[in-house]
Amino acid sequence: MRIGRGDGVADEAEAIPHGGDLGAARRSFPDAPEPWIDLSTGINPVPYPLPPFEASTLHRLPSPDDLAGLKRIAAAAYGAPSPDHVAAAPGTQILIETLPRLVPWSRVAVIGPTYAEHAAAWARGGHTVEAVPDLAGAADATVVVAVSPNNPDGRVVDSRALRRAVASGGLAVLDQAFVDLEDAEQAAPGPGLVILRSFGKTYGLAGLRLGFALAEPALVRRLEAALGPWAVSGPAIAAGCAALADEAWRRDAAEARGRDAARLDRMIHRAGGRIIGGTRLFRTAAFDDAPGLFRRLGEAGLYVRRFPERPDQLRFGLPPDKTAWCRLSRVLR
Amino acid sequence: MRIGRGDGVADEAEAIPHGGDLGAARRSFPDAPEPWIDLSTGINPVPYPLPPFEASTLHRLPSPDDLAGLKRIAAAAYGAPSPDHVAAAPGTQILIETLPRLVPWSRVAVIGPTYAEHAAAWARGGHTVEAVPDLAGAADATVVVAVSPNNPDGRVVDSRALRRAVASGGLAVLDQAFVDLEDAEQAAPGPGLVILRSFGKTYGLAGLRLGFALAEPALVRRLEAALGPWAVSGPAIAAGCAALADEAWRRDAAEARGRDAARLDRMIHRAGGRIIGGTRLFRTAAFDDAPGLFRRLGEAGLYVRRFPERPDQLRFGLPPDKTAWCRLSRVLR
Repeated sequence: MRIGRGDGVADEAEAIPHGGDLGAARRSFPDAPEPWIDLSTGINPVPYPLPPFEASTLHRLPSPDDLAGLKRIAAAAYGAPSPDHVAAAPGTQILIETLPRLVPWSRVAVIGPTYAEHAAAWARGGHTVEAVPDLAGAADATVVVAVSPNNPDGRVVDSRALRRAVASGGLAVLDQAFVDLEDAEQAAPGPGLVILRSFGKTYGLAGLRLGFALAEPALVRRLEAALGPWAVSGPAIAAGCAALADEAWRRDAAEARGRDAARLDRMIHRAGGRIIGGTRLFRTAAFDDAPGLFRRLGEAGLYVRRFPERPDQLRFGLPPDKTAWCRLSRVLR
Repeated sequence: MRIGRGDGVADEAEAIPHGGDLGAARRSFPDAPEPWIDLSTGINPVPYPLPPFEASTLHRLPSPDDLAGLKRIAAAAYGAPSPDHVAAAPGTQILIETLPRLVPWSRVAVIGPTYAEHAAAWARGGHTVEAVPDLAGAADATVVVAVSPNNPDGRVVDSRALRRAVASGGLAVLDQAFVDLEDAEQAAPGPGLVILRSFGKTYGLAGLRLGFALAEPALVRRLEAALGPWAVSGPAIAAGCAALADEAWRRDAAEARGRDAARLDRMIHRAGGRIIGGTRLFRTAAFDDAPGLFRRLGEAGLYVRRFPERPDQLRFGLPPDKTAWCRLSRVLR
């Protein structure tokens, strides 16, 4: 499927629907009980326990030393060869926007269906973009983009297979936004391979805006130049340094969210859903009457993610607490 | 002076020296007494008093409604005709980086000497960039960039004169990062005029990363598309909504910082300095032996800003408290 070709100039955003917009949910279901329960994202509902931010973190500009410390800790946590292989950004999204502008005109294959902002950003960057179902469909591309585990179906792409699929001199982009709590391969960057890692989803701190690209140092420097100094806030640096160094918390979170995901699967099953896939932070399922279920959930103040192009599917984030599990359970039976 | 012409592809950052890097100061003066006093930036040393952030601000993605609320308050505070004339970003710096990528190849005049990132970003964006001493020197340019009040000398450029200096169809960029606490004109956006406003300097919250572009709605949409959704963090949105609505605080801060600036001028004068100019958040002065004074300040744990290309000048931010005023006073006599 041809998605589009931009005109070489970044243009206006198209309205790509996203999870997390509770205001839209409220307007669609004005009579739903409050508080709304937002299950429309894949953000860990149990955030990393942060101490309050030091005043200086808010007051002064983040220093080069602060950023270097974060990159050192991130390189260790993500298995990058060195801090020079790590670019930090105010969320992965802005890296997705920036990367296409640093690459000469390319034939880009995005393995999908997947997170829609990848194809949109490459098209806005002036490239020719095609959605392909798998690596075999990407044979003509000089840039191949895969999300692994994939959002929303959890499909995994091996980083070596991805690199082999890209012609020499091309670029493989592996978005591992949801890999932290999985048993799947956590890929290391290498020539022609850039990996995106999301901080906010894993650590339940999406509002802080922190994400990373792991890549060869030359590409890291170009990404950093495009973002400019001080792109990452002081609170994001402080939170990243604390949480990414806490391997025990991550391991416990992976176990706990794994149990949550299994529980959610059982509920979905009971409601007649067929699990398509997912990660430990969200589950995607097909239903005989997904639009009807979306409506019943909405009327009960539960917001899940639907997909305009796949109206038989819904994606469920993890309920944050007992009340939320109970409210979800009452609809899913 | 010709600054450079990029190759149409954003490239590696050149090492532009900036204030705020206390780590560098410590390395230069390893025997200086702690704590260091950072006078190397123009950040208000008395921050806006923020309540602690709500957990949801950190946890969830900022919603479109959150961002719309911030833009409404910013439009009112900055005198923009509507929220559609306001683009919010994680700091003004990233707007400075982004703007040159949205504009076709141009002959760019930057009125300077001024904040060095403007010329560097336009050059990285592939444009032909010249530094000119005043508007009269910008006659051939299709993009003219002015900082007003200027950093470091405080010079003011009138927005109407700036627009008149730009040929029809061109773009005038007015960086008013330091205008909030001044009596100078606070310009409103219009066709061919984009205004940059900095939140962190005025409100002493530079670590949060928040800045704005005021522009025609079409350009605002293109800036927002280039930054992607969720570019601004939840804490930055919360802080912006609280502080920008607090006109009384801003007015009091303008008065208090005005008194501080006058006191600093008297000290500089006493030390033989000739005030070049500045704003209520920093003062720039020439000294017979500026390198010697920089060294004496550094040895006393006081970090001020120097300018490699103007070695006779130093820029002083405002001391944050009594101790800092005393320590500065001991060197400036």
